[in-house]
Amino acid sequence: MAINIAVDAMGGDHGLPVTVPASLDALKLYSDIHITLVGRESEIREELAKYQYDSSRITVQHAEQVVEMDDLPSKALRNKRQSSMRIALNLVKDEQAQACVSAGNTGALMAVAKFVLKTIPGIDRPAICTSMPTMKGHVHVLDLGANVGCDGEALMQFALMGSVLTRAVDDNPAPRVGLLNIGEEEIKGHQRIKDAHALLTQTSINYIGYIEGDDIYKGDVDVVACDGFDGNVALKSSEGVAKMIAFYLKQSFSKNLLTKLVALIAYPVLKSFKDKVDPRRYNGASLLGLRKIVIKSHGGADQFSFLNAISEARLEVAKNVPDLISAEVSQLLQELKPLKSADDAAQVEQVKTAKSV
Amino acid sequence: MAINIAVDAMGGDHGLPVTVPASLDALKLYSDIHITLVGRESEIREELAKYQYDSSRITVQHAEQVVEMDDLPSKALRNKRQSSMRIALNLVKDEQAQACVSAGNTGALMAVAKFVLKTIPGIDRPAICTSMPTMKGHVHVLDLGANVGCDGEALMQFALMGSVLTRAVDDNPAPRVGLLNIGEEEIKGHQRIKDAHALLTQTSINYIGYIEGDDIYKGDVDVVACDGFDGNVALKSSEGVAKMIAFYLKQSFSKNLLTKLVALIAYPVLKSFKDKVDPRRYNGASLLGLRKIVIKSHGGADQFSFLNAISEARLEVAKNVPDLISAEVSQLLQELKPLKSADDAAQVEQVKTAKSV
Repeated sequence: MAINIAVDAMGGDHGLPVTVPASLDALKLYSDIHITLVGRESEIREELAKYQYDSSRITVQHAEQVVEMDDLPSKALRNKRQSSMRIALNLVKDEQAQACVSAGNTGALMAVAKFVLKTIPGIDRPAICTSMPTMKGHVHVLDLGANVGCDGEALMQFALMGSVLTRAVDDNPAPRVGLLNIGEEEIKGHQRIKDAHALLTQTSINYIGYIEGDDIYKGDVDVVACDGFDGNVALKSSEGVAKMIAFYLKQSFSKNLLTKLVALIAYPVLKSFKDKVDPRRYNGASLLGLRKIVIKSHGGADQFSFLNAISEARLEVAKNVPDLISAEVSQLLQELKPLKSADDAAQVEQVKTAKSV
Repeated sequence: MAINIAVDAMGGDHGLPVTVPASLDALKLYSDIHITLVGRESEIREELAKYQYDSSRITVQHAEQVVEMDDLPSKALRNKRQSSMRIALNLVKDEQAQACVSAGNTGALMAVAKFVLKTIPGIDRPAICTSMPTMKGHVHVLDLGANVGCDGEALMQFALMGSVLTRAVDDNPAPRVGLLNIGEEEIKGHQRIKDAHALLTQTSINYIGYIEGDDIYKGDVDVVACDGFDGNVALKSSEGVAKMIAFYLKQSFSKNLLTKLVALIAYPVLKSFKDKVDPRRYNGASLLGLRKIVIKSHGGADQFSFLNAISEARLEVAKNVPDLISAEVSQLLQELKPLKSADDAAQVEQVKTAKSV
């Protein structure tokens, strides 16, 4: 049976002119998928009419409302029950689709997805996870902004989920997992990071220790776990500096007629360089920790970007990522249980000692 | 009278072969400075002997010990009282030099400088501040790792110090100051950031509100204030992504004979591009909030980088940055005093109300 992917056709900065042709591209690329486009039916059909496609592989599901990019999550949750985002997620909940892809606003998508699909037992907070290029391939980083002020246990859960995802989608048997920290302080970083460090050393996760911001891109770590604030700062700063570099590179090559001529000559080289670091290739962040698969596309995604988000959804369905996470969480809780009991016992002991002093 | 700059000649990954020639370069570049090289006298004289220079403008101050790059700050403080770093800072304390430049380890430099030179009254925690390139010029970012887990008042002090520095060294009458935050959450960021936001809106600082990581590089803000953890993550991630981009650019141009030929043709353009984003130009971070001027050079600095750190020291002496900060802090405390009293009054009122309920 084909994998059915529910696409929030109205989401993102561009909406239908991006989501519809990208969905049709995905159908061409993968013979094993079906797509349900969710949104205003007449508008979707109008967009579809512009293309040739196999209508048996596309379903249109009407949704009256649209979650706007600046809608508050609480508003999206309460007042937009007929939105394309909500209805796409409902299809996944009702098992009519196996994954949802949306370029809609992140906060709203996370809030509605969490409400509709629920979290995996044992997971407190779902996290946003994306892959990013490195000098040797790519790395999965989470959380990227869903959770601010995580404790050590939440960070450990992120590490676990990132590890499971990487093992599944990259066929990497033992992903190296690092905790994002800084190296300046005598006693490094926040307490939550030290707590997560202590927990991770006690698990079967291939935990390699603390890493710093520049290590993200070196290719010596496969999963970076961090608080959502820190991950967001790392991601956005990286985006910013990459854009600045692209800006100056372009400026240098377009300074005058001669440099423009050089640009023409260098075009194939510059093109091959650009392809390697093209952020569009990495579009499609996973909302990990939910019971079903939800992929968040960048709001500003173009057709090629959005296609990659659909590809990610298909891959996660094929690899059955939520079930793998669920199984691993149960196992991890078993691993940590004796330790926790030991901790409790130690604490009781401490209290006793303190009292007797 | 010449500005005397005390250079920790032994600091950094490379030590004397970088610090000595860079110091001589600085003497050539600026007729108004004198340099005191602090470190093992025989080794310094051996290095100096390799160059032609005006010996009347160089003093060598012997120091037996060296703070190693992996020495703990506490160890540097207690056990290395005869280190080149400590003696260079002592020269500044005793007003025999007006500034100290060191490429030694950051944690040790901060700890020893704070102990020897003390903080400006009203400043709780000195911060590390560096300038970084943007699409329109540059931006000052602080703190970059000296302080983890700052409260709102510390962040406000960083904002103030960054603003004063920028006004002085960039001749910018009203630097735009932003607080680093993330945009994903319904209620954004950490409490400390909200507290700093509330404080900053009540001051005469040209505060423009929250910014995100990518805004650092856009050129629409002159000072970015943040917790040391967040600043370090932003800085290191940016460094990492820039290095990765450089790696792929180089790789694309050196793939085969043809691409190497293209690289030769494109060399002047690539060179002009590289100069614009060259991190060596931005070397020389200020330890702001101390009573005297201390400049931290990157540990891996080369001769050109280290020269820039000396230039920064000279500029801050000429502009008298610590005295400017000191004056502004007094004024700010005046501005906030009535507010604080009002706050206290309000709190007393709340307590009263709570009790009467």
